[in-house]
Amino acid sequence: MTTASICTIGDEILIGQIVDTNSSKISTALNRIGVKVRYMLSIGDDRQEIISNLDKCLKDTDIVIVTGGLGPTKDDITKDALASLSGASGYKESPEQLAIVKRILGARHIDLLDINLAQAQVPDTCEVIPNKLGTAPCMKFPFEVSRYGHPAVLYSLPGVPYEAEGLLDDILEDIKKNFTLEKIIHKNIITFGVPESVLSKQIEDWEDALPDWLHLAYLPNTTVGIRLRLSCYGADDPARVERMDSEIEKLKEILGPTVYGSGDDTLQSILPRLLKCPPEATCQETISVAESCTGGHLSELITSVPGCSRYYNGSVTSYSNEVKTKVLGVDPAIIANFGAVSQQCAEAMAKGVACLMDSDYAISTTGIAGPDGGSAEKPVGTCWIAAVHRNRSTGEIEVVSKKILSMSASRDVNIKRFASNALDLLRHLAGQQLF
Amino acid sequence: MTTASICTIGDEILIGQIVDTNSSKISTALNRIGVKVRYMLSIGDDRQEIISNLDKCLKDTDIVIVTGGLGPTKDDITKDALASLSGASGYKESPEQLAIVKRILGARHIDLLDINLAQAQVPDTCEVIPNKLGTAPCMKFPFEVSRYGHPAVLYSLPGVPYEAEGLLDDILEDIKKNFTLEKIIHKNIITFGVPESVLSKQIEDWEDALPDWLHLAYLPNTTVGIRLRLSCYGADDPARVERMDSEIEKLKEILGPTVYGSGDDTLQSILPRLLKCPPEATCQETISVAESCTGGHLSELITSVPGCSRYYNGSVTSYSNEVKTKVLGVDPAIIANFGAVSQQCAEAMAKGVACLMDSDYAISTTGIAGPDGGSAEKPVGTCWIAAVHRNRSTGEIEVVSKKILSMSASRDVNIKRFASNALDLLRHLAGQQLF
Repeated sequence: MTTASICTIGDEILIGQIVDTNSSKISTALNRIGVKVRYMLSIGDDRQEIISNLDKCLKDTDIVIVTGGLGPTKDDITKDALASLSGASGYKESPEQLAIVKRILGARHIDLLDINLAQAQVPDTCEVIPNKLGTAPCMKFPFEVSRYGHPAVLYSLPGVPYEAEGLLDDILEDIKKNFTLEKIIHKNIITFGVPESVLSKQIEDWEDALPDWLHLAYLPNTTVGIRLRLSCYGADDPARVERMDSEIEKLKEILGPTVYGSGDDTLQSILPRLLKCPPEATCQETISVAESCTGGHLSELITSVPGCSRYYNGSVTSYSNEVKTKVLGVDPAIIANFGAVSQQCAEAMAKGVACLMDSDYAISTTGIAGPDGGSAEKPVGTCWIAAVHRNRSTGEIEVVSKKILSMSASRDVNIKRFASNALDLLRHLAGQQLF
Repeated sequence: MTTASICTIGDEILIGQIVDTNSSKISTALNRIGVKVRYMLSIGDDRQEIISNLDKCLKDTDIVIVTGGLGPTKDDITKDALASLSGASGYKESPEQLAIVKRILGARHIDLLDINLAQAQVPDTCEVIPNKLGTAPCMKFPFEVSRYGHPAVLYSLPGVPYEAEGLLDDILEDIKKNFTLEKIIHKNIITFGVPESVLSKQIEDWEDALPDWLHLAYLPNTTVGIRLRLSCYGADDPARVERMDSEIEKLKEILGPTVYGSGDDTLQSILPRLLKCPPEATCQETISVAESCTGGHLSELITSVPGCSRYYNGSVTSYSNEVKTKVLGVDPAIIANFGAVSQQCAEAMAKGVACLMDSDYAISTTGIAGPDGGSAEKPVGTCWIAAVHRNRSTGEIEVVSKKILSMSASRDVNIKRFASNALDLLRHLAGQQLF
């Protein structure tokens, strides 16, 4: 099996100032194409450490992916170390990357300095894979079999997460060209609302009966729900692929409406289907949002989907009670009698924003994200969510609401749970099993 | 200098299923007490890999911290590997940990199984540091100088993040008892608005004149700006600490108002200082937000700061033009004549939300986040941002606005750039250099 190691370079990781998220994304991608990651390593901006560790990585594995240490400043020395490791006789210019550097800095009206131009200079032992999103290119260093006893290739990527991620597809393609990989197919089905332990109990018999070349993984995510990933090894065999598809059908049957999507679906990405939007055109039905404790996160989730302007009108973040009453029209008596964190307030907020923005659907959140605040009756982690649907022909408004109790001490986790539950409530109100 | 390596064990990390956050927390703690982390390593649940890699870690560094692979199930084999590596002749029971195991399972009404009891069994070569938060104890393995040529000690912790974190203080105390440590101090100053390459040019002379025990690092972040981290080695020497502080003063002088904070400051966390909020009390001045293309992200940033209800009223996400005109009161003629992405619209949105929510300050964004849309005149990445201040005694409204051109192809990055620039515009409007 083709193996890989991942090496992250940067003092900022070793002193704990930033968490390395690149390695996780890279290993996910490598696993997807059937490359086994043997280890991940993080080292500092030290020339000798870089050279000796990368040399070991190349000895141990077929593919080495390096991130970080490619910035224009003096503390970034990865390129120099790679020149030395690969026995470069000098540097050459990458015209493609130079054009990108000029375009990026020009657009930002930044004068081109020598250190910017140097970003397009690479050791003469490497091939360049241009980085469209930043100034430092991806460098590919192939090594002769004689050097490590096996064909080995090293890819060096910038450490900026979106730049590294933006280069991954190109690198995967390149790896597929250079190595013979076992074909693996991964398929997700995506669930929301049932905890992992309960889910695993529900599908226990189904899982136990899977053949050993079909592998199930649980990928829980606060915002998305639980992704169930089925991986089919040896997928060159059509019979295996057929069996995989039939197992997925069985799984969907067992889980019923807990399942809301497949692939990379999220509760926000399925909104166009939920609202029955025609492709590329304005939708018949629109949605708006009123949020308190989620503070803009729910709106941000919805607008993270390109093209959402076809169905999304907008939102009000009513952080203060005055905004709840004056902008959303929540009756002050509701807040006086039941409090801002109440079923009544959540429902009034959703109705209020639906009217204000003339939307067909609206969802709302009002709760206590913490870490401070709350009471015995309404502890930190309590949130009321509501969803409404206005029937334009009858004028009727259908309302559903639900109390969420998130047991996390983290403000961030609570906010994410509240927002995803509000989207899930909308899914159930729209009454559709989408997948 | 005392050195350490950190080794995380678990297949779930190598397939990218979870991001390793333990290593970052451990390295932060080690750096704080003056232990230099030389590298971090993640390996799979494979006995031979564990033994050979930990053997190398012990050769390379004085202290090895291991997390993971201590669960009760069959795939967790770290303890067995450590028994072998340390030459244990057998297992012994830890009475303290056994009492904890019984208490934890009893509280959860779980029957004690053999695999639970086995959690209190440890190799006879180790000392136990009890883990009060979970069933697997911390094991400390000291090694003779003769084995690795230097005194070496290995600590094995459970992988569950809060359990590992809960044990850290005990381990740090133990390390301080066993090693003579150099003191290191890290200090950040935080900048926004000047690109890394320009910044490094501005401070080049200053940086070149730093003594070799003072080390500078650049930590760029789309939302925060660029953190400049100065690390002082040998900080037991008061003269060095004094020099560090005077170098920081010099740096601030060179950079001027580009600097906005220190430590863990962010553009949103400094808002209470910017608005001159008294601690723990309601602020005299409040802020609200009107956003279009940032879709809720700007509001989310502001509400990510605990206690923001003292100065934050709320926001309107005016995704559709109807919401801009009907809710925020933007003159439809502005949109007809200049478009929604225009200076005029951004300013009208900020004024509109300040009036709607009766706030002293307001900021707004209207642009094209992409990946699709835009035109030759207003390409993807274009955003107009505005900030207003209402003078309540004179009734005057002060307005500033700015065009941002983000060259990223990533919708997410564009949104982050627009939002952080809007917060920075507010900082400049409030006219204060805060640090």
